[in-house]
Amino acid sequence: MTVAIPSPETLKRLAHAAGPGGALVAGHDDIERYLVEWRGIYRGTAPLVLRPASTQAVADIVRIAHETRTALVPQGGNTGLVGGQIPDVSGAQIVVSLERMKAVHGVDALNNTVTVDAGCTLAAIQDVARENDRLFPLSLASEGSCQIGGVISTNAGGTAVLRYGSMRSLVLGLEAVLPDGRIWNGLSGLRKDNTGYDLTALLAGAEGTLGIITRAVLKLFPAPKATETAFIAVRDPQAAVELLVQLQDASGGLVSTFEIISRQGFELVLAHFDGAMDPLSQAHEWYVLAELTAGTDGWLRHVLETSLATAIENEMVADAVIAESETQRMALWALRENMSEAQKLEGASIKHDVSVPVSQVPAFLAQATQAVTQALPGVRPVPFGHIGDGNIHFNLSQPRDMDGKAFLDQWQAMNDLVHGVVASLDGSISAEHGIGTLKRDEITRYKSDVALDAMRAIKKALDPHGIMNPGKLI
Amino acid sequence: MTVAIPSPETLKRLAHAAGPGGALVAGHDDIERYLVEWRGIYRGTAPLVLRPASTQAVADIVRIAHETRTALVPQGGNTGLVGGQIPDVSGAQIVVSLERMKAVHGVDALNNTVTVDAGCTLAAIQDVARENDRLFPLSLASEGSCQIGGVISTNAGGTAVLRYGSMRSLVLGLEAVLPDGRIWNGLSGLRKDNTGYDLTALLAGAEGTLGIITRAVLKLFPAPKATETAFIAVRDPQAAVELLVQLQDASGGLVSTFEIISRQGFELVLAHFDGAMDPLSQAHEWYVLAELTAGTDGWLRHVLETSLATAIENEMVADAVIAESETQRMALWALRENMSEAQKLEGASIKHDVSVPVSQVPAFLAQATQAVTQALPGVRPVPFGHIGDGNIHFNLSQPRDMDGKAFLDQWQAMNDLVHGVVASLDGSISAEHGIGTLKRDEITRYKSDVALDAMRAIKKALDPHGIMNPGKLI
Repeated sequence: MTVAIPSPETLKRLAHAAGPGGALVAGHDDIERYLVEWRGIYRGTAPLVLRPASTQAVADIVRIAHETRTALVPQGGNTGLVGGQIPDVSGAQIVVSLERMKAVHGVDALNNTVTVDAGCTLAAIQDVARENDRLFPLSLASEGSCQIGGVISTNAGGTAVLRYGSMRSLVLGLEAVLPDGRIWNGLSGLRKDNTGYDLTALLAGAEGTLGIITRAVLKLFPAPKATETAFIAVRDPQAAVELLVQLQDASGGLVSTFEIISRQGFELVLAHFDGAMDPLSQAHEWYVLAELTAGTDGWLRHVLETSLATAIENEMVADAVIAESETQRMALWALRENMSEAQKLEGASIKHDVSVPVSQVPAFLAQATQAVTQALPGVRPVPFGHIGDGNIHFNLSQPRDMDGKAFLDQWQAMNDLVHGVVASLDGSISAEHGIGTLKRDEITRYKSDVALDAMRAIKKALDPHGIMNPGKLI
Repeated sequence: MTVAIPSPETLKRLAHAAGPGGALVAGHDDIERYLVEWRGIYRGTAPLVLRPASTQAVADIVRIAHETRTALVPQGGNTGLVGGQIPDVSGAQIVVSLERMKAVHGVDALNNTVTVDAGCTLAAIQDVARENDRLFPLSLASEGSCQIGGVISTNAGGTAVLRYGSMRSLVLGLEAVLPDGRIWNGLSGLRKDNTGYDLTALLAGAEGTLGIITRAVLKLFPAPKATETAFIAVRDPQAAVELLVQLQDASGGLVSTFEIISRQGFELVLAHFDGAMDPLSQAHEWYVLAELTAGTDGWLRHVLETSLATAIENEMVADAVIAESETQRMALWALRENMSEAQKLEGASIKHDVSVPVSQVPAFLAQATQAVTQALPGVRPVPFGHIGDGNIHFNLSQPRDMDGKAFLDQWQAMNDLVHGVVASLDGSISAEHGIGTLKRDEITRYKSDVALDAMRAIKKALDPHGIMNPGKLI
């Protein structure tokens, strides 16, 4: 890896390649927002932020970078949680923002696809799908500002992975500029193509280390015509996992969301959000927010009610409420969606984005909770998230009587405990947020040398000079 | 690439590594079946066929091969259609059959997964799923003998891709021996894991050129409780494509099979299979076999009937029959499934396994038919297959009055015409059968240099000595 501090001449060439209005130089008023992550956790510097307006401009930039060994940091909506989109502090790295490339190139209704530029926001794509009576199912907290190139590069997840898969599985094809500056056009939009290695799947989730995604063909789905949403008090996480299987069997796999919430987290939401109300008459230890969708009306409600009634009989479920209106549905969703914000309002948090096989979630929750509370009495685990995917955001709120900073000093110690439990259950220490800089060292402790060596070999093969997002992922 | 003819010493070491009963030497009575493809089209030689019984034995074999630069040809059920599993005629290549590794390591009902050895047949896996009230959805003509390692390595498709995806998307994790002989354990069974490049997706469809798959964790699905199967006379392929969208919208995406059949092909089946009967009262130019499945009974039939009634009103559909029993259902399926055999009984065939965006199938069928019938009067196009995936088996039966061999001499000329149309519609010349040796040269004419170079770089990075299935794919 021989990345160099770019010379004034190189900077000039790069700025020119970005086209009119396409370059912001260090010191420019507007440059700060590309260099600082939205929460302020990651902060870097760059002599230049480039905002190319076309694939050809991206290719021109990468070709110059390849030739001059200049490091590039691709950036989408700058909403990532692990620092992957932020340059380091060396001043050697150039940010390439795709934000000016936001055209929608059209919906193919009979192929059920939409072709979009990398800078399109997720919300814009959801809207285009809706206007065409279609669904683009990926949904995230940051959907209003995150851009699809970043969403693909991080293989983002969200609340509908259970039914529709994560981002990698929603991409049919890509256009990308590879690290040598050549444009790869893999935009065919084919549902079947067995002509070699799946470069689309390789670039998805590569966090910009193998090239810059410039355009994508995405899958669309029929828009659901019936939605049923329930807030369910379950006996314990084991009952939650078993209830999911029963709901999937009863509905034929139509559960789109299945999120677990602990009492502890639920109470934080009730405490910090004025409008939040407990929809059930009594307190319970564990809750599930479940949503099922179908293409036809009239029977889904019956399936849900019957399944819940059986689960109540079997003492897996203590109580449940089903939304009777869109307003009620949004109120139930808010109980889940305000979880992160409620934790922030409660003080300092130490976060984990982990996954285990779905069947192992109960063991994980029990063991991880025991490990952290034993090590740090008073710590408040607030686990929540995508139990249907085995993905738990095992977040820890600070003890009430502890200094926030002192608590955050325990970050690595808490990580070690939680990730240790994850490893013992064959899980992943980054289920959906990625590696970036946050977990780049951590990952080497949990992923096998064989896997890491294979990744490094691929990286070196496609980016021999290490110009694409160096310092991230591997 | 420096693959050598193996020395007697190397052969001895390899045979030893395969374990007791694990090696068949050239001249052995049983060796022929590993060297000849089932239709007799591909035929090779090998000084040794190895049949390791454990992952460790596979690793020992590959390590010796890596050290001695010996070429290995991984083989599953030997049912592939493009020669990928057959050694060349140099005598330098060793076959590694996974057939002795066929353990099922158990179903995780709450994770909806099953872990299996590479040598398990597809049918055995379907059976295990069924015994656990689950569905493993991939279904192929060769399912009784094809082995899952090969199914994954070729990213096989089949008749349920529309609903459940092709093989790559059904694998949650793999164990494989990489070309340096190291065992990669990626068997976590996680539904979300964003810790780097997706090696599972890379090995799936790599046709054994990047390593030998030894074990896999596969996704299972709820077993459908309702199935509706219809044989539908459609106005034309455009009406078929539009009907699919309508059925998907009306059912919420529950169409699992949507196969097109032309009158020409249908008549071959009627002519060559005694029990085959036209379920409709009149002849039509185009038919669709459609199947929908759901987790609950009672409403799916109504959705199908209502959609078909609307389509008849709109003159998209001329007539249709819905199976009233499992016997009737099997009779309808036989009309589709006997298509390949009927063509074989009719004489020589020139085959194409192509895909285009679903919306482009009507244009493809019109243009390809015109191209071949203009070039070779009397040729009988018998297109059929997975129109729901944009994947057509555009097979050509010989003119009635032409010599079979003379017709087959037109193979390349017909390929050029059909693949030319495919290329003009941004399609793929191998939708589901893969590349193997059959299309290895052909693919270089249709895939971009950028994509081919990226594939070659990855190959070289992971298999620098080129010992894994040389001469295949790239």
